[in-house]
Amino acid sequence: MKDYQIRTDLALEATEEMKRADAEHMHGIAIEEYRCLEEVRVTKVMIKTRNAAKSMGKPVGTYITVEAPSLQEDDEEYHASIAKELARELKDVLPDIHKEKSVLVVGLGNRDVTADALGPSTVDNLNITRHILREYGKQAYSGRQMHSISSLIPGVMAKTGMETLEIVKGVIKETKPDIVIVIDALAARSTKRLSRTVQISDAGIQPGSGVGNHRDALCKDSLGIPVIAIGVPMVVDAQTIVVDALEEMTSAEDVHARTICYRARENSQLHNMYVTTKNIDEITKRLSETLAEAINIALSI
Amino acid sequence: MKDYQIRTDLALEATEEMKRADAEHMHGIAIEEYRCLEEVRVTKVMIKTRNAAKSMGKPVGTYITVEAPSLQEDDEEYHASIAKELARELKDVLPDIHKEKSVLVVGLGNRDVTADALGPSTVDNLNITRHILREYGKQAYSGRQMHSISSLIPGVMAKTGMETLEIVKGVIKETKPDIVIVIDALAARSTKRLSRTVQISDAGIQPGSGVGNHRDALCKDSLGIPVIAIGVPMVVDAQTIVVDALEEMTSAEDVHARTICYRARENSQLHNMYVTTKNIDEITKRLSETLAEAINIALSI
Amino acid sequence: MKDYQIRTDLALEATEEMKRADAEHMHGIAIEEYRCLEEVRVTKVMIKTRNAAKSMGKPVGTYITVEAPSLQEDDEEYHASIAKELARELKDVLPDIHKEKSVLVVGLGNRDVTADALGPSTVDNLNITRHILREYGKQAYSGRQMHSISSLIPGVMAKTGMETLEIVKGVIKETKPDIVIVIDALAARSTKRLSRTVQISDAGIQPGSGVGNHRDALCKDSLGIPVIAIGVPMVVDAQTIVVDALEEMTSAEDVHARTICYRARENSQLHNMYVTTKNIDEITKRLSETLAEAINIALSI
Amino acid sequence: MKDYQIRTDLALEATEEMKRADAEHMHGIAIEEYRCLEEVRVTKVMIKTRNAAKSMGKPVGTYITVEAPSLQEDDEEYHASIAKELARELKDVLPDIHKEKSVLVVGLGNRDVTADALGPSTVDNLNITRHILREYGKQAYSGRQMHSISSLIPGVMAKTGMETLEIVKGVIKETKPDIVIVIDALAARSTKRLSRTVQISDAGIQPGSGVGNHRDALCKDSLGIPVIAIGVPMVVDAQTIVVDALEEMTSAEDVHARTICYRARENSQLHNMYVTTKNIDEITKRLSETLAEAINIALSI
Repeated sequence: MKDYQIRTDLALEATEEMKRADAEHMHGIAIEEYRCLEEVRVTKVMIKTRNAAKSMGKPVGTYITVEAPSLQEDDEEYHASIAKELARELKDVLPDIHKEKSVLVVGLGNRDVTADALGPSTVDNLNITRHILREYGKQAYSGRQMHSISSLIPGVMAKTGMETLEIVKGVIKETKPDIVIVIDALAARSTKRLSRTVQISDAGIQPGSGVGNHRDALCKDSLGIPVIAIGVPMVVDAQTIVVDALEEMTSAEDVHARTICYRARENSQLHNMYVTTKNIDEITKRLSETLAEAINIALSI
Repeated sequence: MKDYQIRTDLALEATEEMKRADAEHMHGIAIEEYRCLEEVRVTKVMIKTRNAAKSMGKPVGTYITVEAPSLQEDDEEYHASIAKELARELKDVLPDIHKEKSVLVVGLGNRDVTADALGPSTVDNLNITRHILREYGKQAYSGRQMHSISSLIPGVMAKTGMETLEIVKGVIKETKPDIVIVIDALAARSTKRLSRTVQISDAGIQPGSGVGNHRDALCKDSLGIPVIAIGVPMVVDAQTIVVDALEEMTSAEDVHARTICYRARENSQLHNMYVTTKNIDEITKRLSETLAEAINIALSI
Repeated sequence: MKDYQIRTDLALEATEEMKRADAEHMHGIAIEEYRCLEEVRVTKVMIKTRNAAKSMGKPVGTYITVEAPSLQEDDEEYHASIAKELARELKDVLPDIHKEKSVLVVGLGNRDVTADALGPSTVDNLNITRHILREYGKQAYSGRQMHSISSLIPGVMAKTGMETLEIVKGVIKETKPDIVIVIDALAARSTKRLSRTVQISDAGIQPGSGVGNHRDALCKDSLGIPVIAIGVPMVVDAQTIVVDALEEMTSAEDVHARTICYRARENSQLHNMYVTTKNIDEITKRLSETLAEAINIALSI
Repeated sequence: MKDYQIRTDLALEATEEMKRADAEHMHGIAIEEYRCLEEVRVTKVMIKTRNAAKSMGKPVGTYITVEAPSLQEDDEEYHASIAKELARELKDVLPDIHKEKSVLVVGLGNRDVTADALGPSTVDNLNITRHILREYGKQAYSGRQMHSISSLIPGVMAKTGMETLEIVKGVIKETKPDIVIVIDALAARSTKRLSRTVQISDAGIQPGSGVGNHRDALCKDSLGIPVIAIGVPMVVDAQTIVVDALEEMTSAEDVHARTICYRARENSQLHNMYVTTKNIDEITKRLSETLAEAINIALSI
């Protein structure tokens, strides 16, 4: 889970912050948008140059956002169709996935903290094949084409004493997967995206901080193989919500309100607080099943 | 856990809402305040008349608030001394507790929702004696004086289909305790009180709503025996936090800001959202141990 | 979970202990047997007289045993068809269930002990309607016929200080259901029945002891309304397994072996030990979903 | 947790199997025994040669067994004194531990299976320092001497698709600790040792199989640094218990009984079953705290 110093982990929200129109005409950024199911909007933000990356505060790469307004509800069919849509988008960014690959899926976060348990819970629901293929070969699967799938729940630094990058790097060197998929709970800027939006990206992920120091990011640069990140915003920083509520209610010229905003930003009492939905325990359980199903579908040949 | 339509379950905050000075001079209300440990403030709000109850939006009774600023921290000694202080205050409101009594402790809330698990978790840590006294008598305790202590975790209405009052009433009729202690997670108005304030009251408690319809309250009227309620605020309603931030930043005369406040109040997007601390899972575990210790101390003769 | 002093909670095993042929011709006992699905055997043991009850060590009543050899496996379709079969048998013993009834489902056992968590876990998965019917009437269900369904997880005496009977009795007096369904983990005599056999009975249940002292049984006598018990054996007493292995391997005449058996019975080292399957955590989760589905089907009109 | 094909993970029990007297006089084996607390017996089995290792079915190394009969009970003081004794024995086998070392503690097993959760639960309770030392240096600890302590919960092969050895090897190459401590739940042969005996060994450990194929053992040979294993037997194979009960009850010459034993060994019905104590959930929680305390003490300079 992100550290909340930044206001959003979603590239989509980053484009909104700089006003969408400006973002769309910015050099080095391309935005596509379409609907896949009724009410489900898919947005592709492509950050193509270093300059664009700097302006957006996000690394170069493709960011696909699937906004499914009813994802918080307990509708099995809806979840099944979203899983299929996510699988389709995932296949699009997984390099060369029509050939047999070895894929390591990493569940980031802390399984003992509800708002941060999405990664570990998702990994718990995956179809793992690597050990079976190594022991029995493809015969175990009637000779069908199969990806070799393994998974890892590295834990959080406060509990392991190690950076996630160190653990994942070591395991990759030893087991030599072709691709890494990383799953994490994100922070959003807007409560309306909580648990309703899935971001898929080929730009990797920064465990526990989001932006700034990229030394420890899980990405192609640091790991040497393609890294696909899947994230769902589960919390909104409490300070953000106050500042945003103020901004929403005032016009840009309103100097008085701006001052108010500034003071809100300083409001240290909200430090270490986050906003989340009342039934986050239930939502995390359901979302992790949907993400796992999406990955299971995307990784069956 | 409260329903967040109201802004606070704490009588202390209710007095603050009506400006403390006004509250102190109001007929039918008495407020005492003292410090028990360094930095720990104890406030007693006594609501004595129906009129005062109406103004305060809280039933007639005594509300003791123990504010312990470091209660969120993992300091074993601090928690031990707070447990002792809470035990002292509890003994004060438990009627006739120097004589042997039969006490039923009820843990309200939903153990599967972290922010609502305080009641059930506290009950898990209690010293239960009733079944031993019934089977072996006081010999089991070397003939010492002993209260007969039992406990119940009734669950929430969405899962049981029954009102908490129905369950507790039935069990009381069958097992005939002299006193009921009820534990619940509360909603506060101010984030600075989250997980740092304990309210002890002889006015009973309203599961799942706080104020208004008193038909289902757990109180002396409905249960026929004294009801002591212990609560700790674990969440703040997300709307409240925005409105409060605004109010804090503007003067009363500031019409413009008032309008803003009004619009914030309408902000339906924050519906069903709450603000809580990042490590609420850990905090709930620790607090429930401290509350259980306080009750265990208060109920040993 | 039973206390393991007795060797089985299954009436079916009790008939086997006295040799099936003898049991079948015993006055006051009737046994029927049929297959419902391939490999699934259903046995109905009817104990009709007090004398028969005494010989069998089980109260008068009907005991339906559904033996589904693959119930331990993770086969969704299989579990769905067993749930349907169980629903059919349940409907058979639920009195007058074609009319609208008020049904209280009670999950016995301790949710913190895996081998004893079946009751609470099953209750967690039920469709509860009572509170909705009371608030909105049948309109909430488009005017369809509906049973009023409530549920209770009373906890175990070591934690509540109260006997399960006291809690259930009190709640029944207050909420006045027409029927009680009770779910519990049982002890079997044979490991081959572990997690593969479901017993449905109208004879009620004895929490925590099985036989002998019937003072605290949950049954029509003690509760005043019909009590349907559903149980699945989750453990085998460790002593039983040794004695049974010996008996299996020796002929009745083999005096030497009999002596051995006797000494095994004395083997106090096995006290407080039980035999269970390696993946009992997983099995409990799956079985509780299957039982809940069976009850949900049986209770939809 | 071991695979139960073998009958014991305890070197002490292996010496008993070959009759203690024979073992003591065997070339390449040395056995020492003393009492540390009242009733607590410490046995050191040293396997010194390859031949001795072959006879014993355990790798060359020192195996310290601490038998604490009351370890199953909930006596805080007793657990504290056992933790101290375990710390003393641990310090003895941790190479060069008076100097500052980097130590990786690995919790083997599956946290979702109660009988196999000891390793992960123990690791959850450790004092982790590596990340603090790396970020702030020894200043964070007032300049005191400190070991750099990290931890890892690799998960089980059925869930990760990777062998534990691969994961641990990779993490060791990346983070370069000086010593590895590995914690695992073991299988014993005798129920009287369940949850009452701790084995500390410098011979490493074989995740998930115990003996035979040593390709995947976590040991100095495979990892390149000293490996200290800590284990507690949590289960006994159900077949073992039957065979042992028989053997106990018959004399060696009793051919008839031997045949019986043989047939018991074939008893496939007991496959995949284990014997464990009724309150294993509680016991695992308490034992993991005691082991963590022992490690925390042993690793404080």
